[in-house]
Amino acid sequence: MDGAITAALLAAVREQRPLVHHITNSVTINDCANITISAGAAPVMAEAAEEVADMVAAAGALVLNIGTLSAAQVDAMLIAGRRANDLGVPVVLDPVGAGATPFRTATVRRLLDALDIAVLKGNAGEIGVLAGTGGSVRGVDSGGVTGDPVETARECARATGTVVAMTGAVDVVTDGKRVYLVKNGNPAMDRLSGTGCMAASVTGAFVAVADDCAVASAAALAAFGRAGERAAAGARGPYSFRTALFDELAGLTFEDLAGHARVEEPYGV
Amino acid sequence: MDGAITAALLAAVREQRPLVHHITNSVTINDCANITISAGAAPVMAEAAEEVADMVAAAGALVLNIGTLSAAQVDAMLIAGRRANDLGVPVVLDPVGAGATPFRTATVRRLLDALDIAVLKGNAGEIGVLAGTGGSVRGVDSGGVTGDPVETARECARATGTVVAMTGAVDVVTDGKRVYLVKNGNPAMDRLSGTGCMAASVTGAFVAVADDCAVASAAALAAFGRAGERAAAGARGPYSFRTALFDELAGLTFEDLAGHARVEEPYGV
Amino acid sequence: MDGAITAALLAAVREQRPLVHHITNSVTINDCANITISAGAAPVMAEAAEEVADMVAAAGALVLNIGTLSAAQVDAMLIAGRRANDLGVPVVLDPVGAGATPFRTATVRRLLDALDIAVLKGNAGEIGVLAGTGGSVRGVDSGGVTGDPVETARECARATGTVVAMTGAVDVVTDGKRVYLVKNGNPAMDRLSGTGCMAASVTGAFVAVADDCAVASAAALAAFGRAGERAAAGARGPYSFRTALFDELAGLTFEDLAGHARVEEPYGV
Repeated sequence: MDGAITAALLAAVREQRPLVHHITNSVTINDCANITISAGAAPVMAEAAEEVADMVAAAGALVLNIGTLSAAQVDAMLIAGRRANDLGVPVVLDPVGAGATPFRTATVRRLLDALDIAVLKGNAGEIGVLAGTGGSVRGVDSGGVTGDPVETARECARATGTVVAMTGAVDVVTDGKRVYLVKNGNPAMDRLSGTGCMAASVTGAFVAVADDCAVASAAALAAFGRAGERAAAGARGPYSFRTALFDELAGLTFEDLAGHARVEEPYGV
Repeated sequence: MDGAITAALLAAVREQRPLVHHITNSVTINDCANITISAGAAPVMAEAAEEVADMVAAAGALVLNIGTLSAAQVDAMLIAGRRANDLGVPVVLDPVGAGATPFRTATVRRLLDALDIAVLKGNAGEIGVLAGTGGSVRGVDSGGVTGDPVETARECARATGTVVAMTGAVDVVTDGKRVYLVKNGNPAMDRLSGTGCMAASVTGAFVAVADDCAVASAAALAAFGRAGERAAAGARGPYSFRTALFDELAGLTFEDLAGHARVEEPYGV
Repeated sequence: MDGAITAALLAAVREQRPLVHHITNSVTINDCANITISAGAAPVMAEAAEEVADMVAAAGALVLNIGTLSAAQVDAMLIAGRRANDLGVPVVLDPVGAGATPFRTATVRRLLDALDIAVLKGNAGEIGVLAGTGGSVRGVDSGGVTGDPVETARECARATGTVVAMTGAVDVVTDGKRVYLVKNGNPAMDRLSGTGCMAASVTGAFVAVADDCAVASAAALAAFGRAGERAAAGARGPYSFRTALFDELAGLTFEDLAGHARVEEPYGV
């Protein structure tokens, strides 16, 4: 995928500044708010059943993240998600820890059954579990997949009817047919809590301004990964990396992104 | 308002180190805790119905923030607020997102009806909505007011019986009669999640040590704004600005604040 | 205690990378996640009653922190704690604000009664309250103890049947008989929200890889305190100190820790 497409989508986020409604975990909720701003969009976090249908009606995307799920929060996700579906607002689901407990796995399946999810953004273990082809998850960390990662992602996309964005050293984005491999990023991103959640937030910002969710997801991960590459250059540890990650995404130029986005299409266009 | 007044109030906060009880949102709760410490006060966050009346009894101020409100949290706000009123502990209300959903607007009206709010600290859109003169809010961001900002703030103060602290490029603080325009601050504060919430926390610290809530609110916003000005000087992006914002408020000298606080009284004293 | 023991335990954490299950407050939950990673372990935060028993079964330690407790959260702590006890997973309890409200004090007593707590990590005021010998707590800050700190900690350990880790300028770790005084640390740690909570998280990581919870707790506090000493060197304020604290713990070498850990045994081995 040409870097110019990624840069054009970042420009659209910054120009349109879409509202990204999150129903998310309490661990990284602040990270998600700030990375959404750094991407050029506007975050709002709201999960009261009394208001989520109203809030999502003003949003360009809805991000659901089950990192610290509760029964009440899942109910709010269903209310918000149904309204989003009615209005054509794309829904990004981050199945944090699916496979780690039966409650998480069952909740993700329930959300996938009840809602039209546009993008399912998970780590390899989570996607492997949801594909049904085998994956392991420990806490909220991926333990890897049983078979071929690309085939796992494709199978998950076909089984769930979503665009799958499977993050890792190389991110795999696929709608079951097309496959994008995103090679931007830096290992420092794995040594910081919340980078997976942030990736879902940035994806939410991008799908809010695009029609093609596979292209938008790949572009989002490339932009976020490119910010990570730049941030790693001067970091002295995980927290100075974190500071730089937000700064670099906010300051990322279209020229830099167009020149350094690395999104490959191994099976052709 | 003379800069020495602002500096004297900051000195009083640091000397008395008041306890500021927050019932606040989960997005910026850590920011609020740390900015309270940076201001020189002591934060405590507690929202269980079982304990809020006890906790607020030890506090110098109570800060209520509806950023991620729930029915249970609003109940706790009412319990804590009533006890604060009984004890003469000033209550600061941050009506985050009022106008964005009916639930938020109705909750703010309910809190204003049930409690004696000392300071209502909101952005322009929120204050316009609550004044009834017209304002727009998108997510938690201000979309501006219909008429004159100063008149909007005064009308809101008169209608609600509170000191209104309306934040923006220029902050307007008014009790309906007196008007203070606070011209400290930096646009970088708008590109960071939580600066509005932090402003309410700092205001809580200042009203805890002062009798005049309008003066204290103006001084708090001047001190916080001045820290923002200093922080912006060396920042490379929103997150290094954030790091500097906490550092600068913690290290703000009385001399610097006395010399650089810019609080104007356009209609005289 | 020889510095080599502390270094060896840090090495074991980094090698085994234990999962540390937290049920914790919403103020510092992100700090706890990131400091756990910086220590070399893997954090997971989960508090739904539906899943805590499953999650803790995969963990090397369970950290319970009542900083923003609710009735539902305490129920989850009891479920997780009982399962942890059944499985031999050590439980660290941080009694945040015990003594500040009757609800907090009663909750800590309830958890101590119902569960086998391995380590009780609190500030001096909290430990004094729980020892029954006198302590004062204001919000979540220690107001000190009535009598001798070391005797207070020992009495608390004997009364509760736990290892007590009492943090302060000098940390006191005791099982009621043995006493370790940990002299690492820096006053900057007191001017930052969450360092107490982070200390409990690091303690959780260390007890997950050790049999002797007193030795592990002392080593954890020494390592965390050493990171604080190094971080303070270049910090310009509380938030740049915070950035450096995470970076320094993540980058702490075994040589540095072995050479600079200061754990004294005033009453002999």
